[in-house]
Amino acid sequence: MDAITSIDDFRAALAGLPQPDATALDGAAARNATLTKPAGALGRLEDLAIWYAGWRADPRPRIVSPQILIFAANHGVAQRGVSAFPPEVTAQMVENFRAGGAAINQMAATVGAGMAVHALDLDRPTADFTEAPAMEDEDFVAALATGWSALDPQCDLLVVGEMGIGNTTAAAALSAALFGGTGADWTGVGTGVAGAALEAKIATVDAGLARHADRAGDPVALLQALGGRELAAMAAAILRARHLRIPVILDGFICCAAAAPLAVAAPGALDHAVAGHLSAEVAHAALLDRLGKAPILSLGLRLGEGSGAALAIGVLQGALACHSGMASFAEAGVSDG
Amino acid sequence: MDAITSIDDFRAALAGLPQPDATALDGAAARNATLTKPAGALGRLEDLAIWYAGWRADPRPRIVSPQILIFAANHGVAQRGVSAFPPEVTAQMVENFRAGGAAINQMAATVGAGMAVHALDLDRPTADFTEAPAMEDEDFVAALATGWSALDPQCDLLVVGEMGIGNTTAAAALSAALFGGTGADWTGVGTGVAGAALEAKIATVDAGLARHADRAGDPVALLQALGGRELAAMAAAILRARHLRIPVILDGFICCAAAAPLAVAAPGALDHAVAGHLSAEVAHAALLDRLGKAPILSLGLRLGEGSGAALAIGVLQGALACHSGMASFAEAGVSDG
Repeated sequence: MDAITSIDDFRAALAGLPQPDATALDGAAARNATLTKPAGALGRLEDLAIWYAGWRADPRPRIVSPQILIFAANHGVAQRGVSAFPPEVTAQMVENFRAGGAAINQMAATVGAGMAVHALDLDRPTADFTEAPAMEDEDFVAALATGWSALDPQCDLLVVGEMGIGNTTAAAALSAALFGGTGADWTGVGTGVAGAALEAKIATVDAGLARHADRAGDPVALLQALGGRELAAMAAAILRARHLRIPVILDGFICCAAAAPLAVAAPGALDHAVAGHLSAEVAHAALLDRLGKAPILSLGLRLGEGSGAALAIGVLQGALACHSGMASFAEAGVSDG
Repeated sequence: MDAITSIDDFRAALAGLPQPDATALDGAAARNATLTKPAGALGRLEDLAIWYAGWRADPRPRIVSPQILIFAANHGVAQRGVSAFPPEVTAQMVENFRAGGAAINQMAATVGAGMAVHALDLDRPTADFTEAPAMEDEDFVAALATGWSALDPQCDLLVVGEMGIGNTTAAAALSAALFGGTGADWTGVGTGVAGAALEAKIATVDAGLARHADRAGDPVALLQALGGRELAAMAAAILRARHLRIPVILDGFICCAAAAPLAVAAPGALDHAVAGHLSAEVAHAALLDRLGKAPILSLGLRLGEGSGAALAIGVLQGALACHSGMASFAEAGVSDG
């Protein structure tokens, strides 16, 4: 569908998900076996190339137009002292993204990716989820619609990133609600909280879980109640990418938490996505485990913005460059082993 | 020095190694602390950027001219059935490198690196090291000289790769001789040997260790006896890079084995080098551990050619792009945490 105009539209989009192209998968695997290298010597790069080929329905694709979408939003729970930074930093960082001064700008330039920034009603934070659902229906639909329409259908690889003071709190609450466990299980340092602030963050997550316990088993309703506008937009962009067979590289804890409702609501819904990196945010490893994803990189990043996933674009570009650019044993006149 | 004309030249080059620039290290660390991100949020990328800045004597450097040098050679031990591929593949792959058809060509293009290929007397394999030193003095010096002079003094990052049927056998023998242990401890599948061929490979390594036991404690003499022309050339290129303060990304097992004599002969001689990746070759983890290096990537590659290190160039480029391109909190008007 071209646009999301209701929560039901979004729920409907979780059904009838397209699968990778079996002919392209077979063709890519066959091509991989002919290339001038010992069998399996490119390790995970071979798996990534074949996976990408399947989704692009092309046994010999290249990555030409990667897109990075950044969604920014503010959170009611930020008033509860859950972050090391004040809420105004969200808007300040949006200006920094637009001026080219943030980490993600440099990553995008390094890998040759396009980048767009969507600020979602920054002057109107979501509700404090310990008191009410983070988003009323209208807000939730607007955020989903923004994410859905932000995706450029012509891109051939998607990274979604975020900025939102307080959003590791939302991500922790959403993860706990989807997969079980308590605030202590899913809450980490975020931008750098410790001591009393970390305790407040954990208590906030637990209060949110208790407040919205009646939504258990409904991942979309949990995204609305515990997420935030940027998490909803990320989920929608990732889901639309699936419908357009555009592969996705997931970023860290918040991105994976935003994607998780899709996987819980429709098993296999993230088959078009790989994990770009393992974040230093403590619960990310558990979240990747629940999603069944092995990270491409593990460099201790915990910045968000899509930065870890953007760095992994380079790895995927290398994988596809090898897959699609290498000579075969026959072409190169090299003796096979 | 401009050229290596004797083994003594090479030994002399192991003394008086330059250190990173302390002012640039301090300046880079200070700059890192001002950038628009939570402290430490770029994880290992921050360490890599500061390390690189120190060696380049520039607190805000960029990677502009990375160079990949590929050295190819043939090994007497290849006649002992230690490889899954016949020895003529070395020359065939050199042609493939020159025609642009190998994995390393695609990696070089992906990261924008220059690449040069040096074939070292392919029609004249080294001696079988179970019977004699792999290289006579003249051969050894010629290989060292080739590696030394191959380095472009204007490059700002070096990757050395290799091609040589039989060279995981040489690397295993050299590693065992330098760090202790037996053939079984250091021998892996290489391009894909198993069963009787793997047993022959292990026995070859043990025979080489016994044959050259009198060289124990002399890393340069061990490189001559158990290495190969490409390993000697790699060692020389890495050592010259140190004198020119050009940072190095080490590749997999063979590259690290070639570099290891430098570290054993002159502790700290590889401080200007980082480990690009952890190879699937089984002994690479132990070798990195002996060298005190943590790999940037771990993707199951075991191809050689410098391919894993070349892929890691992209990570280092991202690290430096962030370090040198990001705005500070003050520049961007972002509130510090």
